[in-house]
Amino acid sequence: MPEQITLYTAKICPYAHRVELALEEAKAKYTRYEIDLTNKPEWYAPQVNPASKVPAVAYGGPPVPADQPSLESVKIAESLVLLEFVADLFPEAQLLPSDPVLRAKARFFIDAVGTKLTPSWNSFFRKGGSPDDFFAGLEVIQALLPASGFAVGQYSIADAAIAPFLARAQVNLENDTGAWKEGEGKTVLSVIQSPRFARINQYIKDLEARPNFKATFDKEYIADVFKRRFGNIRAQNSQ
Amino acid sequence: MPEQITLYTAKICPYAHRVELALEEAKAKYTRYEIDLTNKPEWYAPQVNPASKVPAVAYGGPPVPADQPSLESVKIAESLVLLEFVADLFPEAQLLPSDPVLRAKARFFIDAVGTKLTPSWNSFFRKGGSPDDFFAGLEVIQALLPASGFAVGQYSIADAAIAPFLARAQVNLENDTGAWKEGEGKTVLSVIQSPRFARINQYIKDLEARPNFKATFDKEYIADVFKRRFGNIRAQNSQ
Ligand SMILES: [Ca+2]
Repeated sequence: MPEQITLYTAKICPYAHRVELALEEAKAKYTRYEIDLTNKPEWYAPQVNPASKVPAVAYGGPPVPADQPSLESVKIAESLVLLEFVADLFPEAQLLPSDPVLRAKARFFIDAVGTKLTPSWNSFFRKGGSPDDFFAGLEVIQALLPASGFAVGQYSIADAAIAPFLARAQVNLENDTGAWKEGEGKTVLSVIQSPRFARINQYIKDLEARPNFKATFDKEYIADVFKRRFGNIRAQNSQ
Repeated sequence: MPEQITLYTAKICPYAHRVELALEEAKAKYTRYEIDLTNKPEWYAPQVNPASKVPAVAYGGPPVPADQPSLESVKIAESLVLLEFVADLFPEAQLLPSDPVLRAKARFFIDAVGTKLTPSWNSFFRKGGSPDDFFAGLEVIQALLPASGFAVGQYSIADAAIAPFLARAQVNLENDTGAWKEGEGKTVLSVIQSPRFARINQYIKDLEARPNFKATFDKEYIADVFKRRFGNIRAQNSQ
């Protein structure tokens, strides 16, 4: 039986969202504590995560309020470390397949998300770079997907690793909130919805239909945060 | 029982060395095939690893010569994916502890190697940057080590992930082969051998005394390759 789990997270953060998806998929009992990333509590870095980032988990120790973490709980950080941790804590949830080859494929997929997809998205989204790199990143992912189902067939931590990024990208493209020039979000969205990306589109639908996703994704909240952030950038740029 | 394992590797490459260490530690039966990284065989990228890097594994399929890979074997790349794969294939070798918290600590250590240690070493070694970042990277690692023993106590894939880099750094500092100015290698080595780095020094000794290390590290060969590489750079610079 796993010990108590306190997850320090933030709705806006795709890295933290990964761990929420895994915990929900495992039907874990856990305490969710929202960290305001724009105004982090003073105790957070010294008592939970010296890197001062979310996600982090306090595992075990005595029952305490989340904002008064115990010295006796183990503190664990890094979203991919935590995905594996949740898979290890809840083996019956099969967050990784039992076949070593499929496990390797799940981890190779996760590596491609971190080395190919998220850098290409960030360059387009945050720096207004060309969308072509992002399309290339999506094609790498699309080529790794089987004909149907999730990244390695059954749902796994590979899907939890990518879903937060694909979902936030959709929201930003739909609302045209990004460092690109006005209107470009919708143009890029129409490319992604064309036959060229048919497989990844189906995959996004499958990810978003999953109960663990519905339980953890607050689309309106996320849209609002990005509208404020990029609305302000555009207002500044046009001054 | 694992199926046949063919490892495509190169003695000089620290990433490939990781996987050799894990396979030796597991006492795995495997075929080792040396790839000349300066003159890769034509069949390697199309038939084994499209990224054209080592390490890669061909797993399973019919018995074939390593230079005629079968379409029926599964091809797996990325050193960290392969470390986990070897741990999964040989559970009795305990390349990861069974306790989920210790497994998370091993993976957090591996993350720190890739995000803190190797970038700081590469910047000093390849670009002649200040050694201070490298010292900072070593201090991150040193702070993660327990008072004695390996990264999480017992030997694990965390140790296989770091050993190739620490060992090659030693060789380069000893021989003053790096992009730094002449003589700086030995100065840095003396700092690393001072009390400030006592714990990591003991750790390096423990890693290098391990049979899996002795079976896979050809110090003279590696020293020669780096001497040629950096000797040529210095010769060019002084022309
Ligand atoms: Ca990584």
